[in-house]
Amino acid sequence: MHASGVITITTDFGHKGPFAAVMRGAILSRFREAEIVDLTHDIPAQWPPEAGFWVDRAYRYFPAGTVHVAVVDPGVGTERKILLVEADGHAFLAPDNGLLANLLERHANAAVFHLDFDRLSAFDVPPPSKTFHGRDIFAPAAALLASGTVGMEALGTPATDWIPGWLDEPTTGRDRVAGAVITVDSFGNLISNIDRALIEGLPDPVVRVAGLTLPLSETYGRVEPGDYLALINSFGVVEVARAEGNAADSLGLDRGAPIVVTAELTA
Amino acid sequence: MHASGVITITTDFGHKGPFAAVMRGAILSRFREAEIVDLTHDIPAQWPPEAGFWVDRAYRYFPAGTVHVAVVDPGVGTERKILLVEADGHAFLAPDNGLLANLLERHANAAVFHLDFDRLSAFDVPPPSKTFHGRDIFAPAAALLASGTVGMEALGTPATDWIPGWLDEPTTGRDRVAGAVITVDSFGNLISNIDRALIEGLPDPVVRVAGLTLPLSETYGRVEPGDYLALINSFGVVEVARAEGNAADSLGLDRGAPIVVTAELTA
Amino acid sequence: MHASGVITITTDFGHKGPFAAVMRGAILSRFREAEIVDLTHDIPAQWPPEAGFWVDRAYRYFPAGTVHVAVVDPGVGTERKILLVEADGHAFLAPDNGLLANLLERHANAAVFHLDFDRLSAFDVPPPSKTFHGRDIFAPAAALLASGTVGMEALGTPATDWIPGWLDEPTTGRDRVAGAVITVDSFGNLISNIDRALIEGLPDPVVRVAGLTLPLSETYGRVEPGDYLALINSFGVVEVARAEGNAADSLGLDRGAPIVVTAELTA
Repeated sequence: MHASGVITITTDFGHKGPFAAVMRGAILSRFREAEIVDLTHDIPAQWPPEAGFWVDRAYRYFPAGTVHVAVVDPGVGTERKILLVEADGHAFLAPDNGLLANLLERHANAAVFHLDFDRLSAFDVPPPSKTFHGRDIFAPAAALLASGTVGMEALGTPATDWIPGWLDEPTTGRDRVAGAVITVDSFGNLISNIDRALIEGLPDPVVRVAGLTLPLSETYGRVEPGDYLALINSFGVVEVARAEGNAADSLGLDRGAPIVVTAELTA
Repeated sequence: MHASGVITITTDFGHKGPFAAVMRGAILSRFREAEIVDLTHDIPAQWPPEAGFWVDRAYRYFPAGTVHVAVVDPGVGTERKILLVEADGHAFLAPDNGLLANLLERHANAAVFHLDFDRLSAFDVPPPSKTFHGRDIFAPAAALLASGTVGMEALGTPATDWIPGWLDEPTTGRDRVAGAVITVDSFGNLISNIDRALIEGLPDPVVRVAGLTLPLSETYGRVEPGDYLALINSFGVVEVARAEGNAADSLGLDRGAPIVVTAELTA
Repeated sequence: MHASGVITITTDFGHKGPFAAVMRGAILSRFREAEIVDLTHDIPAQWPPEAGFWVDRAYRYFPAGTVHVAVVDPGVGTERKILLVEADGHAFLAPDNGLLANLLERHANAAVFHLDFDRLSAFDVPPPSKTFHGRDIFAPAAALLASGTVGMEALGTPATDWIPGWLDEPTTGRDRVAGAVITVDSFGNLISNIDRALIEGLPDPVVRVAGLTLPLSETYGRVEPGDYLALINSFGVVEVARAEGNAADSLGLDRGAPIVVTAELTA
């Protein structure tokens, strides 16, 4: 991987307090030329699946050689390990808690390491706190990798297994794909984990959610205000929206709610 | 225009999910040296007037040659056009949905273009999604313009008309200017669309809102806690505030509420 | 101080509107190479103590020579002064309203100046608005200091006194330290102003809050879900958390709530 010098940060830290900012400080202290982008800090507290989903769906829009750090880390300070992954020309750092499981499923030839703090400490990284590895471990590791001066093999040992994801992948039948809402955006759109590729074989697919049956639209602006619609969104997954409205609030649905896609004639 | 390399982004995307971040990624993928500033992502969903107001009021505090991108875009994926504007030494990109109408009214000699995707695609921009032009069209166009390598005329065709603004400009009479609240800030201050210039001719102007009659103060700290006050704010428009309080909550007012300035003796 | 070119910004502006962004614009207009980091903009409106707490706890994670600007400024436009402080190899700018009082207590050999606008204006800074000194005074002063071309003594006059902090420091007795919650993070963790150093002499310290008596844990993940715990957090102060829960909501506590640490056997 040829480092781009860009680092993205994804966390559940929210915006109160300087938590994400001191990660930036720790990066800049080691690699002043880093270009740091906040992917999002509004992951639901201590829920890795949404962080993994967004990192997996967003990384490709960054320059090749970008380092993506995701810290949703309920096990910080316990024995949980840390994963370093190189896949598709990008680097990924996260706690080994299932966050990167889906991404790893899609990239069979990824290089995967467990971070070895002894190796990291050789680069003048002091002993970490027990409760903020984002600042004390992830940030310096990301700075080293993004600067292009250190490779993953210098920071970790090859890993052959890791914690599985918290959410099942969608189940696929002959005329039916059953998934779930994985996140809700600021507009109230319900974003599922059903990838476009899973439903390509379905003739005349319709989306079934909360008693509604919705054909696939192309975009938001083609139905009447207040109507519900389903589409393949710009990140390649099935989404349910309400024109000029908030689908999540109106339908009373949130993360985890089932979404099913079937061939139109299926009952 | 001599490009500064700075790009500002204004959207209604909120902070959940990586929507603004992938616009950054798409920019950095084409122009790694870009300096990108989030103007705000908290524009009310699908309400262009506030985005236009803030872009118009804020652009002048950025270096000359900055590219300002505003994506509040209920018509994404339909036939709506995209405007490229050069005015007062800055560049502005937005959907042609009224967002830039007020700014264009103030700059009669602005250069105005409609973006031509065929021209943009000549710069290795792939076909866009139907639902996220911020990432797929606005970001690459902004990167090209901000890098200084491409001029607007290479990306669009001259435009002579565009969609008007959604809100009326304030009405001005001999002793009276009637406008509206255009946004409420985090302190609950009610910010109107009444520019300082509109009331300069009024002798002893007072601000009338929600049954109150308020003289113009110079700053927030000169009245008693809990008192309401009106002032010309730091962006040059009439604002109503409550000292150490939240005027919007206390008065029960929000965007769209009428604000009138009159000469003091007017009933 | 050797300037790093990095500037942090801490405010109570929230995320609605372009207030923090135009501070960035004003900095970039004078010092295009600045690396600007938002520490947080979610300080409670017009409450300087939390801003001072976070600046004091976070600055050390940034490169030496960083300029930290904190604008929580209920007295903007009145006679309140502005402090410029150099301490521990970093620079600090804030209204003289108690915000920096705790930091100054810890750094007896800090260099302290009151900003003199006449001196600042000599660097082509136009007269400020009455209500937005963040943009009109703090941003240009920070840009000048961060660029390394101007020293503090060129912008201000030596100061020997300043406004004290709004909150009392913790009181310390023989077997007891009594402090207060100074902020609540996005997880609902209650963060106190009791520094690790204050309780080092206590044998078997326990934390008493809202009727609970909690021993000090090492990290969040070592108790059962739903259990409360206390720890010295990653910023070196006593914190009360709830495993996989929200301590602030569950206990009904907020900023200002008392937290006491005693030796275990003390009643």
